[in-house]
Amino acid sequence: MSDARLDRLSINQITVKSWNLEQTVNGCAAAGIHRVGLWLDRVAETGVPRTRQLLADNDMQVSSVCRAGFFTGETATARRKAQQENFESIELTAAIGADVLYLVCGGVPPESRDLAGARAAVLDGIAELAPRAHAAGVRLAVEPLHPLFCGERSVVVTLRQALDIAAEFPAEDVGVAVDSFNVWWDPGILETIGAAGERVISYQVCDWLVPLPHPVYGRGVPGDGVIDFPPITAAVSAAGYDGPIEVEIFNEQVWATDPVQVLELVKQRFVRVFESGAAGS
Amino acid sequence: MSDARLDRLSINQITVKSWNLEQTVNGCAAAGIHRVGLWLDRVAETGVPRTRQLLADNDMQVSSVCRAGFFTGETATARRKAQQENFESIELTAAIGADVLYLVCGGVPPESRDLAGARAAVLDGIAELAPRAHAAGVRLAVEPLHPLFCGERSVVVTLRQALDIAAEFPAEDVGVAVDSFNVWWDPGILETIGAAGERVISYQVCDWLVPLPHPVYGRGVPGDGVIDFPPITAAVSAAGYDGPIEVEIFNEQVWATDPVQVLELVKQRFVRVFESGAAGS
Repeated sequence: MSDARLDRLSINQITVKSWNLEQTVNGCAAAGIHRVGLWLDRVAETGVPRTRQLLADNDMQVSSVCRAGFFTGETATARRKAQQENFESIELTAAIGADVLYLVCGGVPPESRDLAGARAAVLDGIAELAPRAHAAGVRLAVEPLHPLFCGERSVVVTLRQALDIAAEFPAEDVGVAVDSFNVWWDPGILETIGAAGERVISYQVCDWLVPLPHPVYGRGVPGDGVIDFPPITAAVSAAGYDGPIEVEIFNEQVWATDPVQVLELVKQRFVRVFESGAAGS
Repeated sequence: MSDARLDRLSINQITVKSWNLEQTVNGCAAAGIHRVGLWLDRVAETGVPRTRQLLADNDMQVSSVCRAGFFTGETATARRKAQQENFESIELTAAIGADVLYLVCGGVPPESRDLAGARAAVLDGIAELAPRAHAAGVRLAVEPLHPLFCGERSVVVTLRQALDIAAEFPAEDVGVAVDSFNVWWDPGILETIGAAGERVISYQVCDWLVPLPHPVYGRGVPGDGVIDFPPITAAVSAAGYDGPIEVEIFNEQVWATDPVQVLELVKQRFVRVFESGAAGS
């Protein structure tokens, strides 16, 4: 019944967005998948005790939790509020037994247009979070987003930049997340993944569709786009990462499809793209 | 009548897309603007003799010509065809008395997904063009596009990458183009512009709107978005570039506006954003 080729497959719950957390956990388990990436708003909706129960009942591991961050508010008040939420996010991550919390660092403050200042604010924000994360047994994953999101969501836009930030803190507390959609274009990506080594604490995958249907909700199922995954997967493995490979797809067409079918397609593609032997294994 | 603060302003003709070449040249001259960036399809439509006449009659300089490139075709036949067109583009650029030809290098071949191979093809393609450009008195401007376009239009996505390519050739033949929309997010952009020095042969500007209305047709008039232009302009100046600053706006709303009004708005913004003294002057 259990297929070893799916051992590393994790489903980020946004991929099956129409399901609530309970449906996601039950649905993944029914599909033979035992890893999920969770979103904190859905955890809050379900409650910690029920979430823990669902995970335990289904032998389900949490590969990552999304998300804290947004360090770049225009005002001190906005930044303070974001940090309070970040403290709570760390506690919530620990409370459900998860240990990797994504940081989406925040975009350019539109009034000031101060990109350099926003980048400094990210470092300050993480410096305040790192000891709390350490105390809670949670690792912070600095995620470089695609440069497409520099305005709205993240002034951290390259893995090199994420790595330089992470390097300011102990490796056990702050790492980096490699998401194929965000980094595939980077001419130095394979070398930078190698340089990241043990700092790589999460590997998320989805494809880049041509043409891009939408700047945010147009990501593809691996195999449907132009990303050549095997070299990236091989670099991540060579860096020492052997954890979950998490499929995270923001796509309105995928979301309109029956999640049971989505999971079947993702499983087929996962085996073909990541476990076919072409992936450097 | 002539406003010295507009001396460096050039209008890329895509900004006034509803005008043909004759209307563009006449309209810019009437607005006190004496530099334009032209597109070869519009030149071909108008014909070389008429284009030359219009430029001469209106004391109009051509700041750049768009475009050659597309070196990354899936097949040898596709690449050969692109090069034949590129040879013609060089001749056409020289024929209208222009000397800067943009290279949009081409995206990832979707069948092979071979990003590294496509990048090698760009270098090979330029190596073949450079001597012809030299003979024609045309400089090739390698334009890094935003990483957003890596799939469809350009595997050259950072200024550093463009500079590394250009450095393989004599500086008088191959330079780089700095376009604010394409490079503003890059954490190393100011240093790389400095390193580019005399290789900077064109500076195009438009803004990054938040939220981004469309991945291709959603660029903003300078001042409407989150790009902080003065540090970029200062870096371009410090690199030694004192040529035209070309406003190029792909935006459906701008295109639906009367071009006379668009030129007035662009002039106001140009003075405010680029000639206010904040721009490092």
